[in-house]
Amino acid sequence: MNFNINIDKYRNLKRSMEREMINLNPIQRAGVLPIESKKAIYEFWDGYSVCDYCSGRLDKIETPPIHEFLEDLSKFLNMDVSRPTHGARESKFIVMNSVCKEGDYVVLDSNAHYTSYVAIERAKLNYQEVESEGYPTFRIDPEKYKETIDNLEDSGKNIGLILLTHVDGNYGNLADAEKIGKIAREKGYPFLLNCAYSVGRMPVDGKKLNADFIAASGHKSMAASGPAGILSINDEFADGILKTSKKFLVKELEMLGCTSRGLPILTLMTSFPHVVERVKKWDEEVKKTRYLVKELEEIGFIQLGVAPKEHDLVRFETPILDEIAQKDKRRGYFFYDELKKRKIGGIKRGTTKELKMSVYGLSWEQVEYVVDSIKEIVKSSL
Amino acid sequence: MNFNINIDKYRNLKRSMEREMINLNPIQRAGVLPIESKKAIYEFWDGYSVCDYCSGRLDKIETPPIHEFLEDLSKFLNMDVSRPTHGARESKFIVMNSVCKEGDYVVLDSNAHYTSYVAIERAKLNYQEVESEGYPTFRIDPEKYKETIDNLEDSGKNIGLILLTHVDGNYGNLADAEKIGKIAREKGYPFLLNCAYSVGRMPVDGKKLNADFIAASGHKSMAASGPAGILSINDEFADGILKTSKKFLVKELEMLGCTSRGLPILTLMTSFPHVVERVKKWDEEVKKTRYLVKELEEIGFIQLGVAPKEHDLVRFETPILDEIAQKDKRRGYFFYDELKKRKIGGIKRGTTKELKMSVYGLSWEQVEYVVDSIKEIVKSSL
Repeated sequence: MNFNINIDKYRNLKRSMEREMINLNPIQRAGVLPIESKKAIYEFWDGYSVCDYCSGRLDKIETPPIHEFLEDLSKFLNMDVSRPTHGARESKFIVMNSVCKEGDYVVLDSNAHYTSYVAIERAKLNYQEVESEGYPTFRIDPEKYKETIDNLEDSGKNIGLILLTHVDGNYGNLADAEKIGKIAREKGYPFLLNCAYSVGRMPVDGKKLNADFIAASGHKSMAASGPAGILSINDEFADGILKTSKKFLVKELEMLGCTSRGLPILTLMTSFPHVVERVKKWDEEVKKTRYLVKELEEIGFIQLGVAPKEHDLVRFETPILDEIAQKDKRRGYFFYDELKKRKIGGIKRGTTKELKMSVYGLSWEQVEYVVDSIKEIVKSSL
Repeated sequence: MNFNINIDKYRNLKRSMEREMINLNPIQRAGVLPIESKKAIYEFWDGYSVCDYCSGRLDKIETPPIHEFLEDLSKFLNMDVSRPTHGARESKFIVMNSVCKEGDYVVLDSNAHYTSYVAIERAKLNYQEVESEGYPTFRIDPEKYKETIDNLEDSGKNIGLILLTHVDGNYGNLADAEKIGKIAREKGYPFLLNCAYSVGRMPVDGKKLNADFIAASGHKSMAASGPAGILSINDEFADGILKTSKKFLVKELEMLGCTSRGLPILTLMTSFPHVVERVKKWDEEVKKTRYLVKELEEIGFIQLGVAPKEHDLVRFETPILDEIAQKDKRRGYFFYDELKKRKIGGIKRGTTKELKMSVYGLSWEQVEYVVDSIKEIVKSSL
């Protein structure tokens, strides 16, 4: 039994990002665990740790309080039923796989995350995009959803689902879910809202937004260890999505019985008090973001997407960085390098034309440090 | 924003099982993390922690060394290509969803895990069971696979996949994968081996066992935090299973882009050195199990499944416990209760007719303590 494997490289794996740096990566800023969750991890790190008192289904476990947690989550989102999943993409696939028939069309915004398209392909469906208004706002016009649906109907296509990216990962635009949900409802199509960048960061009221399904991400926006997600469903669709096996009567097919059997669901729960409190301070987060934009536009950054910002994810055009890169011997890497010296990370290496960042959850002092550092880098490089 | 939720119940969640008890639960014994993994968790507990240096696909990440890990895993299993998944059930669904066509038959053993059936139903497939020899061995006869396949062919059914449970979760029987794999190959059908209870506990050589696909479980048998699994594939089927999106050319459809983006894959990696070493000591684990069986049969337990044991999961008929329960005022709970007093857990509460246990990974001293405790409970209750 000589496997000829050097196993030493798996010993002592380290990560310095969160301990030593201010991380500006928008996909990571709202996935940082609060202390309470870190403490709970010590208790539950072993495999199947949440299953000590299981009597057949993850979502019904009372110790730890998974069942209550899912009911509280439904209250938090103003939806009827919730289930843990492995992430927002898995939530979306579950909806598509169970409410659509092969070949159906999914109508979705052109700002949609790549996983929406991949889930559509995996579920053997077609799609029709609703184009955004393009540069520089990339705004999604609700009326365009109506037009797109009308056109598909006129050409005899079968529409299975209307999908909207509540906040997109390219521009951090907050779409008008309420209006688009209303259009979907009036047309009689189920409406899936991808809240990977909203639930857990900002208040989301599913009923107010006319959502039939909400897909949320634990690791992206709910201060949980990955991979973890939530699928929240309105009663009307609950029986379909949560259909159980003919042979094993309590097992839900789309969950393959149980989904998040370990640390991810545990950290979702233990971070929940923190998340409930932080969404109440969303206005303050938006203020920080707008401050960041205002300050960086002064040195030649140009904010893309709808202005003023309604979400912490910011995409900038940065011609000024591109200009500096032309004459710096580190080329495009100078910015990453200079930020690193100042213990700031999470900006893509080598990019200078455009970049994305977020200061979500940072203190005002940290936000100011970030702003001052970037200003200093740009000014001293010119 | 008053959500009317009592968030205090999610604070300070505790689990005493592994810290204070000897846990005999077969689904948990091989999911206990080694110290190395516990240390690494401190580094990577935040959401998307493994994605700091991602350039578009989880399985290609070099820091931490996920890419190398997957190559090493393929060596370890003697297979060609490996991917992380959320668990063995998710691996099985991926195979079914991509190699079978709607309505195809899956041939599987009657000892199969419930998730094999649930995955079949979710993938809209049919199945035909190969019956075991029944009480008391519940052995799977390879020849029966041949008969079942012949019968399906004779009745014009389309067979999409042959599935075998390498070691089943009811009796801990080790099936003759090599022979059944050979039958599948000769008949020209793809062969999926469910190794949720074998890979990570004992040596598994995929090519020797004629496996086209291996589904493995991180939290069940590879000393990882859940949910984590592995799908290993032979080259012949790799392109089909790992088909990429038409729109996002690097994204694998069946993985929805990426799967295990966080602690589960991290602990799979950091536990790998421990796992590679421990499978070399499998003979010793079998010895411990046979010792347990011999000792407990002396006090009236009867081992079900193939004898002598070839795996650590043991199912006992326990008429002696049933007899004691008749006159104990705690009824069926006396056994659980008495074990608990002795700091032994993981046996289902209230069951006295049959029970499952495993002493996998316990020291000989602990095994003896378990045996002596059970003997003492039975003898003093008679």
